[in-house]
Amino acid sequence: MDEFALIRRFFAAAATSRDDVILGIGDDAALLKVPAGQELAVSTDSLVADVHFPATLPPDAVGHRALAANLSDLAAMGATPAWVLMALTLPEPDETWLESFSRGFFVLAKQHGVVLVGGNMARGPLNVTLTVHGLVPRGMALTRGGARAGDLIYVTGHPGDAAAGLKLLQAGGADMRHPCVRRFAFPEPRIAAGRALRGIASAAIDVSDGLLADLGHLLEVRGFGAKLVLERLPVSEELLSLQGQERAWELALTGGDDYELCFTVHADKATEAEAALQTVGCTAACIGAVEPRVGIHCLDRQGQPRDYWRHGHRHF
Amino acid sequence: MDEFALIRRFFAAAATSRDDVILGIGDDAALLKVPAGQELAVSTDSLVADVHFPATLPPDAVGHRALAANLSDLAAMGATPAWVLMALTLPEPDETWLESFSRGFFVLAKQHGVVLVGGNMARGPLNVTLTVHGLVPRGMALTRGGARAGDLIYVTGHPGDAAAGLKLLQAGGADMRHPCVRRFAFPEPRIAAGRALRGIASAAIDVSDGLLADLGHLLEVRGFGAKLVLERLPVSEELLSLQGQERAWELALTGGDDYELCFTVHADKATEAEAALQTVGCTAACIGAVEPRVGIHCLDRQGQPRDYWRHGHRHF
Repeated sequence: MDEFALIRRFFAAAATSRDDVILGIGDDAALLKVPAGQELAVSTDSLVADVHFPATLPPDAVGHRALAANLSDLAAMGATPAWVLMALTLPEPDETWLESFSRGFFVLAKQHGVVLVGGNMARGPLNVTLTVHGLVPRGMALTRGGARAGDLIYVTGHPGDAAAGLKLLQAGGADMRHPCVRRFAFPEPRIAAGRALRGIASAAIDVSDGLLADLGHLLEVRGFGAKLVLERLPVSEELLSLQGQERAWELALTGGDDYELCFTVHADKATEAEAALQTVGCTAACIGAVEPRVGIHCLDRQGQPRDYWRHGHRHF
Repeated sequence: MDEFALIRRFFAAAATSRDDVILGIGDDAALLKVPAGQELAVSTDSLVADVHFPATLPPDAVGHRALAANLSDLAAMGATPAWVLMALTLPEPDETWLESFSRGFFVLAKQHGVVLVGGNMARGPLNVTLTVHGLVPRGMALTRGGARAGDLIYVTGHPGDAAAGLKLLQAGGADMRHPCVRRFAFPEPRIAAGRALRGIASAAIDVSDGLLADLGHLLEVRGFGAKLVLERLPVSEELLSLQGQERAWELALTGGDDYELCFTVHADKATEAEAALQTVGCTAACIGAVEPRVGIHCLDRQGQPRDYWRHGHRHF
């Protein structure tokens, strides 16, 4: 099968539609309608084999994960996913691989009502690059720039699990059903949480490079810092039992691949934020507060600072 | 420098802005405004080293070419370019390479008023994936679907030149100033031509995989065919002198990498189409007509059919 037959079989056939798609897969470009009063949120992200995931990861997980990583960026903006384009480079047109990959991709796409409207397939080293488009009511997007000194800092879910899961995968023979392995292979983007936080959170970012690194990106916009309380980190039971307390904290702070949201909220709105997240079934922990000076300090139960490298995933 | 420093230095610093960019590079997603009455045209395309271009191609040509290939898809829709996102995977953070690459990219971007609003940089085999966004007044987009039997078939510029240029590059020691080499390395997307053909052309496609292959994609939408007249192919003097008449025709029909437009127009509108293109300084040749039955036949000066493989670039 050539590129076009593969696209028809594995992608065009499974692509659903939406009222705002005037023209989907199959022309030189997709034609889309952005409703009045909505802003368009757009983000692109690549997954490269043996850089962002082990090349042996099951293809349905690669498909899911590529989309989840991209949707996570929309979640951090408070946007509702709408459309996605896929540029897929793979060494050979392996139909078994494509069948599983596209299944993993479309299961998640359908969950979030996001429609594949275009793409490109080429020969080369495995690289999945998606560009996702979301909609957000005018002026309501969450950004990195709104944090103020004194704001409380929250993180959703259980950071560190995915990094522990990756370690299990890298060691070989991992049980794909292990909760931490699933958190790496099939992360759930926090779309509902991002939407729920519109008008409540002062700033938000998605945690993909590690909590300290990404919180650092959020804070650096205005030259702020933070104090975090280690005991408040929402470390999962599974992570604790795999890694022990100290190592669990380290992975929660620096592990990466979490696709959780880290957000700030004025103390007056903390209750509202917690209630809004509860409504959508998302757990979140208050882990500290924004400080007026640069630097993130992690305090133990005695209030003593611990040194954690502020390193997340380095792209080079 | 890490990813973020490289992005700041080579991309964010050079990115210009537009009134419709609410938030550009530097957050989880870009925020964009689509004006009322406009549809959004979106396309994505990847360039992979040693698949789509020789890895030795000067980096400014890689940057130019990646954007030109993507803009060419917008040209074929009659859309006006607005925004672009870049997912760049490269083996190492080579600053000399990045400097030249980004220069080539931004020179073309500025010519077309297209603004870089986001992206991603990662380590891996060289892969440039862009997603371009254009605007087109509601209902005015050119598509592949509108051709009718009897419509005239046109192609802009000089197809075949780029393929001949690639052969010169592959042979080694090519003069980068040779017109055919420049046509491969620095193609000019036919944005002005696409816009000029709004409301005039019945269908359009960009020629990237070879004229016969891409015309075939346009015709297959409705199960049509075509008769083409070899003598009318707009073969350039340079291509003729490099390859001779027979081989020049073959390259014009099957070469690929042209980034010209192939379009159809009802005979009543042929004069209007030619005048519109003349206004924007774009040459175009009428090379044949749409036939009601499947199959593309290329006729010589005696009216005898010649067999040309209907193969363009095969992606696998």
